Amino acid sequence: MKHDQFHWEHAGIPKRLLSTLLKKLSPEIDKVKKALKKKYETAYASLSLPHDTKQLRAVETLAKKYKKAGALVVVGIGGSDLGIIAIVEALRGKEHNVMDKKEIYFAETVDPFSIEQIQSKMKEHQKKKEKVVLIIISKSGGTTEPLVNFQVLLKTHKNQKNWKSHTVFITGKGSKLSQAADKLDCPQLEIPPLVGGRYSVFSAVGLFPLAVLGVDVRALLKGARDVQQDCLSKKTSKNPAALGAAIQFHHNRKGLNIFNLFLFNPNLEHVGKWYRQLMGESVGKEFNRTGKKRVHTGITPIVSIGSTDLHSMAQLYFGGPRDKYTQFITLHDHADKIKIPKEKIFADIVEDVQGKTVTDVMNAIEKGVHTTYKKLKLPHTKIELEKRDSYNLGGLLQLKMIEMIYLAFLLDVNPFDQPNVELYKRETKKILKGRNL
Amino acid sequence: MKHDQFHWEHAGIPKRLLSTLLKKLSPEIDKVKKALKKKYETAYASLSLPHDTKQLRAVETLAKKYKKAGALVVVGIGGSDLGIIAIVEALRGKEHNVMDKKEIYFAETVDPFSIEQIQSKMKEHQKKKEKVVLIIISKSGGTTEPLVNFQVLLKTHKNQKNWKSHTVFITGKGSKLSQAADKLDCPQLEIPPLVGGRYSVFSAVGLFPLAVLGVDVRALLKGARDVQQDCLSKKTSKNPAALGAAIQFHHNRKGLNIFNLFLFNPNLEHVGKWYRQLMGESVGKEFNRTGKKRVHTGITPIVSIGSTDLHSMAQLYFGGPRDKYTQFITLHDHADKIKIPKEKIFADIVEDVQGKTVTDVMNAIEKGVHTTYKKLKLPHTKIELEKRDSYNLGGLLQLKMIEMIYLAFLLDVNPFDQPNVELYKRETKKILKGRNL
Repeated sequence: MKHDQFHWEHAGIPKRLLSTLLKKLSPEIDKVKKALKKKYETAYASLSLPHDTKQLRAVETLAKKYKKAGALVVVGIGGSDLGIIAIVEALRGKEHNVMDKKEIYFAETVDPFSIEQIQSKMKEHQKKKEKVVLIIISKSGGTTEPLVNFQVLLKTHKNQKNWKSHTVFITGKGSKLSQAADKLDCPQLEIPPLVGGRYSVFSAVGLFPLAVLGVDVRALLKGARDVQQDCLSKKTSKNPAALGAAIQFHHNRKGLNIFNLFLFNPNLEHVGKWYRQLMGESVGKEFNRTGKKRVHTGITPIVSIGSTDLHSMAQLYFGGPRDKYTQFITLHDHADKIKIPKEKIFADIVEDVQGKTVTDVMNAIEKGVHTTYKKLKLPHTKIELEKRDSYNLGGLLQLKMIEMIYLAFLLDVNPFDQPNVELYKRETKKILKGRNL
Repeated sequence: MKHDQFHWEHAGIPKRLLSTLLKKLSPEIDKVKKALKKKYETAYASLSLPHDTKQLRAVETLAKKYKKAGALVVVGIGGSDLGIIAIVEALRGKEHNVMDKKEIYFAETVDPFSIEQIQSKMKEHQKKKEKVVLIIISKSGGTTEPLVNFQVLLKTHKNQKNWKSHTVFITGKGSKLSQAADKLDCPQLEIPPLVGGRYSVFSAVGLFPLAVLGVDVRALLKGARDVQQDCLSKKTSKNPAALGAAIQFHHNRKGLNIFNLFLFNPNLEHVGKWYRQLMGESVGKEFNRTGKKRVHTGITPIVSIGSTDLHSMAQLYFGGPRDKYTQFITLHDHADKIKIPKEKIFADIVEDVQGKTVTDVMNAIEKGVHTTYKKLKLPHTKIELEKRDSYNLGGLLQLKMIEMIYLAFLLDVNPFDQPNVELYKRETKKILKGRNL
């Protein structure tokens, strides 16, 4: 995507306020630019990922070995798999595993039913002598759910011949998980220490499984690099990340505590889930950046799917409280060849659709929604992706990550940590230590 | 489920306030009880569905004919399919279509890519001489998306022998769609006029596709009937719907504009999506019940999945703004036999899990989260489902529908209409009439 695909004429922010906020962002843009030169040494490390040719080589070299694999099982949770699912579903559809391609399963949380289903699929492939690649992703190497699932699934996986060469560890250098991989003599890929989970999609975390699936990861990275150019521009009126952050910040300060990411394509739903983590963890903070002031800041991201959610949530959005700022993301299939057949028997039921394409209808619905938002003066912006491909997805995800860094700056919080998550982890560990489950 | 599976000791509502609200609900409970006797004649019509043996017979008789079908394609959107998906995924898992059972596909919004994938699956079955049942669900019979998708998919479907007998219409009596079914001579099932989409899961809308799949719909209805008993009880301190509505109302009045339905089982995600519509459309209203006062009332429902979203949203929930009331829904698999293998190489990575079951770990995580909510004084309640079966699901969905009716009563809005949705529909129609898409 390019900056001119970001439309903000109905953002509902006064021009003067906007330019003040954009000026405020200027030093942060400088900081990010400087950080890029220091590669993986600063908190902004993730921005160097799309430029890392060494990493790309390592990923592609390993991925090549699994060209003939029948299926992938990815064990990971949160930042370790949301980006992968987002891209897989966007490109291959939500029902990708029943279509005629290499399968990919995600073991996320600990649920015996889901794990058993994955086990049975692994066994099916073993029977057919098709190789399964088991991938464990955890930067810290110590997250409970993936470690539990991995141990359970590894037991099944071990019935596969040469299972070791088909078990890939993606983890931080020197983590306990990495040491285990060494002992087992399994291939591993590294996550740079300062790249956090929610910013890791362009690291081996995202690239490796996608490359095995045959996704064009080079285009993905190219999309990210191209958008970086726009998002690091000091011409802030053409910088979509700066504009997006300023608009978001303005509405939050005005009391809108909900951000509605309204994706007008059903296969983008997981992009929304990936975004939930990005926003939830990056700006949902108890303390400000210095750690001294208790602020309880944060914006709750919600994900809507067009046109599906018009039939479930539009009533609330149009009639309910004015507590949301909305961003539409559109992705139309202009190559769409499906014409709605002309049949007399249905002609008077839904008028004016016969002979049109499915995309025409989606366009009309989307425009109808825009007009309604305008008429009701509900603040909204729009990102228009021109194609459903790796390049555009790479751009979108990169834009959102940089925007989040700028938003955190305006909100005076640290976009890279997530200290409060430790709370429940500590409690859980205590309970696991005890006897009464 | 039973009323004693609703836990509200940490609901964060003062006892006196609670009893005042419960008293307020008393006349509404009476009204609902009286309405039940009038069957389908009042706005509360949906409550009669679980008692309707005639409907059940019609559904089961027709469903029997498709016992041998290889796949179902359900064309519907919003209230026409969310309940079905919720139950299918809860019982069969999200990856149900790759598991060894009858497939079911849902054509929701207009998206050429998804529609093409469904078409290709239909063709595959045709090749294998397996029958596909095409089901179109629309009460009004005039919703754009399903009508567009139906016309497109029908074209593919017509290549199937005896396609007419395998095309089922579920629609309102006398709708244009019903007339089309008559002309085509296809089987149809009826949706009672006063049963709205979001309250229709126990009508033919939900029952028929589920019955064809082999789901125990009798248990589903029994679960609903049993919960009705509790939810219509005047002993409000034991009435989970009354309690739930009063607690929800209290927090909304206190300014919490977000309700977090936190489902501690990944296969319940679509129960959350079904609930979003129920809450979004039922209480998201511009005007009060008399239609005279502009109120812009409403609560934004969000759906979280345990433990997955702990790794994406917990930071926001624990550290961010105090703008949410949370309800946990748990569903543990106590028959779980998957033990985490004891392996030296992993023993020190995640401690205290080896030898335990996967469910043990989920229990510990869930308890850890509860303790954290308690410590942070975040208001929350919990519904505990004892089993992943039709009976418990029927109970849960029925509880939520009655709770919503009570909540709307307290908020002084109409739980059954959705007038604002018309806004975008009108705009869309104008655009479809024009030439510039």
